[in-house]
Amino acid sequence: MKQRIILCTLLLVFYVLCPFSGWSQNGALVFQTDFGLKDGAVSAMKGVAFGVSPQLKQFDLTHEIPAFDIWQAAYRLQQTVAYWPAGTVFVSVVDPGVGSVRKSVVAKIHTGQYIVTPDNGTLTLLAETIGIDSLRQIDEKVNRLKGSDESYTFHGRDVYAYTGARLAAGVIRYEEVGPALPVDIVKIPYQPARFDKGIFSGTIPVLDVQYGNVWTNIPLSLLKENGIRYGDQLKVSVFNNKKLLYSGVMPFATTFSAVAPGQPVAYANSLLQFAFGINQGSFAKKHAVSSGGNWIVTIQKTAPKNK
Amino acid sequence: MKQRIILCTLLLVFYVLCPFSGWSQNGALVFQTDFGLKDGAVSAMKGVAFGVSPQLKQFDLTHEIPAFDIWQAAYRLQQTVAYWPAGTVFVSVVDPGVGSVRKSVVAKIHTGQYIVTPDNGTLTLLAETIGIDSLRQIDEKVNRLKGSDESYTFHGRDVYAYTGARLAAGVIRYEEVGPALPVDIVKIPYQPARFDKGIFSGTIPVLDVQYGNVWTNIPLSLLKENGIRYGDQLKVSVFNNKKLLYSGVMPFATTFSAVAPGQPVAYANSLLQFAFGINQGSFAKKHAVSSGGNWIVTIQKTAPKNK
Amino acid sequence: MKQRIILCTLLLVFYVLCPFSGWSQNGALVFQTDFGLKDGAVSAMKGVAFGVSPQLKQFDLTHEIPAFDIWQAAYRLQQTVAYWPAGTVFVSVVDPGVGSVRKSVVAKIHTGQYIVTPDNGTLTLLAETIGIDSLRQIDEKVNRLKGSDESYTFHGRDVYAYTGARLAAGVIRYEEVGPALPVDIVKIPYQPARFDKGIFSGTIPVLDVQYGNVWTNIPLSLLKENGIRYGDQLKVSVFNNKKLLYSGVMPFATTFSAVAPGQPVAYANSLLQFAFGINQGSFAKKHAVSSGGNWIVTIQKTAPKNK
Repeated sequence: MKQRIILCTLLLVFYVLCPFSGWSQNGALVFQTDFGLKDGAVSAMKGVAFGVSPQLKQFDLTHEIPAFDIWQAAYRLQQTVAYWPAGTVFVSVVDPGVGSVRKSVVAKIHTGQYIVTPDNGTLTLLAETIGIDSLRQIDEKVNRLKGSDESYTFHGRDVYAYTGARLAAGVIRYEEVGPALPVDIVKIPYQPARFDKGIFSGTIPVLDVQYGNVWTNIPLSLLKENGIRYGDQLKVSVFNNKKLLYSGVMPFATTFSAVAPGQPVAYANSLLQFAFGINQGSFAKKHAVSSGGNWIVTIQKTAPKNK
Repeated sequence: MKQRIILCTLLLVFYVLCPFSGWSQNGALVFQTDFGLKDGAVSAMKGVAFGVSPQLKQFDLTHEIPAFDIWQAAYRLQQTVAYWPAGTVFVSVVDPGVGSVRKSVVAKIHTGQYIVTPDNGTLTLLAETIGIDSLRQIDEKVNRLKGSDESYTFHGRDVYAYTGARLAAGVIRYEEVGPALPVDIVKIPYQPARFDKGIFSGTIPVLDVQYGNVWTNIPLSLLKENGIRYGDQLKVSVFNNKKLLYSGVMPFATTFSAVAPGQPVAYANSLLQFAFGINQGSFAKKHAVSSGGNWIVTIQKTAPKNK
Repeated sequence: MKQRIILCTLLLVFYVLCPFSGWSQNGALVFQTDFGLKDGAVSAMKGVAFGVSPQLKQFDLTHEIPAFDIWQAAYRLQQTVAYWPAGTVFVSVVDPGVGSVRKSVVAKIHTGQYIVTPDNGTLTLLAETIGIDSLRQIDEKVNRLKGSDESYTFHGRDVYAYTGARLAAGVIRYEEVGPALPVDIVKIPYQPARFDKGIFSGTIPVLDVQYGNVWTNIPLSLLKENGIRYGDQLKVSVFNNKKLLYSGVMPFATTFSAVAPGQPVAYANSLLQFAFGINQGSFAKKHAVSSGGNWIVTIQKTAPKNK
């Protein structure tokens, strides 16, 4: 009789804790792609993952990455990953080289999340900010959907979703993904932010598309260390291919409502990087600003006019 | 031994019922924003909520509210909330005044759902239809994501998603949101529907965007009380800023297929309010109709031509 | 005491296995509509399903089917259903005839998934590829949301989501959907692929919209049986209403990177049907190709130039 009680209790514990006991995964699987949501591709991936384990909690980062835009895939991961707990598994499929020699990998980053992705530059920003702890190459002999050998162009479903689901569900441990690789990922070159002779400069990695705000890669910390304070008036200039497109003075504020509607304002965005926009308007639209490595922003503190 | 059995049974009950025993929440968390789905903002909110409790069931109302359109946020809540069970927690973030003095609140409505939102007009329609039971201001000293103090512009993630998740998961009770407020919310003024001298009039609060049908705020009940029946021929007129844009006669029917493809038809929409469209076509596109308080619709019953 | 142990164990088993013990459903509910995601319609459906059972796992196929496009609804089901396990319940609502005489049905297909849909052609392709096992008409006297009798135009919420949720959650068995029907569904006529005198021909059922690749209904198996091999050079021609729009030679390859960026390439898509595109470009945009029954593609193997 005693054994039965023990068995019963064990079963209980088993069902509650077991799926992840001893693993570092937490059952969350988050997808990012450039597939869009107009067809069945994303749903096929989720069906494969559900087939691996109905217990998985499946989420989306975004499926609206512009087609083949690896840089933006890298940026959106950097923007989001830190807000998910350690053990979350991300599957990111922006893969212009599908079927070519690029490696299929799983990276474990320092804060404990996993990224399943082609090694094509998608890991660039996470590697430099959070840092990559270790890297494994997916062994497609074991980690590939059964019966998918004739399909060469949908690794997102057949390799990445399948492997990500198995990892997230605890069907495999991280070590069972495949052989360890040196942490030497493919990186997209880009210009980091600088401070030189009183002028801050950086690029526009992405726009805050929905509202038309302009985001830069200049960290709030760099501004603070060099004397910029909320309430300062800043001269902000925007260059495209070295041609000046906009120059104006705006306050550095904590809220958009620090200025009247229609007026420009600078602030720290949700990544704690320098950004600017128009209160209840679209700066990007008004001044035809876009994003990329050939877009440069400079910032300079203006002298107070009088006292 | 008896204690063990009791313990085992209690544990079982605990894991099955406990997350919500004694609470009125049900574990469902539904998001609405004007963020769009092109970047990582929505996913960061869901990551924060998952971090609060992996057991939450996270859903979306829509993230395609036009930027800053508080009225539409109010309307979409009214359209949807009643179809979710009591205890569901909604997080609605359309917040042009983020960081300004508008209050952050949680409203409990008469049917038992909770709405976490800036108090900026988003609650206007729910207050008038279902009714608000009570209101609490979010105490950001306890109900704010740890470590988010330097970010002033993403309260959706740091305050609303975090508080909504804690409430939905039963980490806090409703009373622990923060101090009670008088139920005196910010309201967006609008023109209610009327019946006067044989003519019904109302506004076009939103379009049925996907199909181009025109929705009004004239309730089916008002029509019925004043003698309108399915099968009646109705004269429908549309005014923009008092200028007549369309006038035509159409049947009041229960199905679009009551008329031939391409013909106009009036019906009661899924909110049981008067609406009209074109069978398998777009009325809004054909007649350039939009929505808002300056769009007026009038309805009049036509005399039967003969017998 | 013994009884208590048994009771405890039974309860445990009950909570873990019961929702689907004896049923063939698996708790997954997947929605497809032409509603778009801009309003609250999809969320109202999910709220109704959550009200039926909070334990359901709710997913989306797509909500971006073009309005009233039954053909595309049929195609997206065919593209996706097989990647979800047996027992998954799909709710597909593309329903231009809502409220008319078309039947509301649930089909069980040979691989064990269920499709809840108006019988208006949505089942055309599944019937021909996977095959329909049996068909039942929804009995709206029992399988309709309580209190929804006055709403005639949102069967997606009141009938299809409600019935799909009850079936997926095991509240009803398949037999309780309503009376059995002969498996004689409404079909959309279309032209199957052919091979005749060395020329393969087929239609363009849909585009691979996100990337601009052109998909055909010509199966890889038909090509293989008639001597086409990877590495062959193929002459591909595209006709719209019998008028030649494009003709060119391209390699039949397993990866896009078999050709230089900007060059055309033929491949087998994720449905193992013949497709072609431009490496890192949009074939459909460049050559103004669209989809439908009046778009014809022919394929011919070219002779090797020398040897």
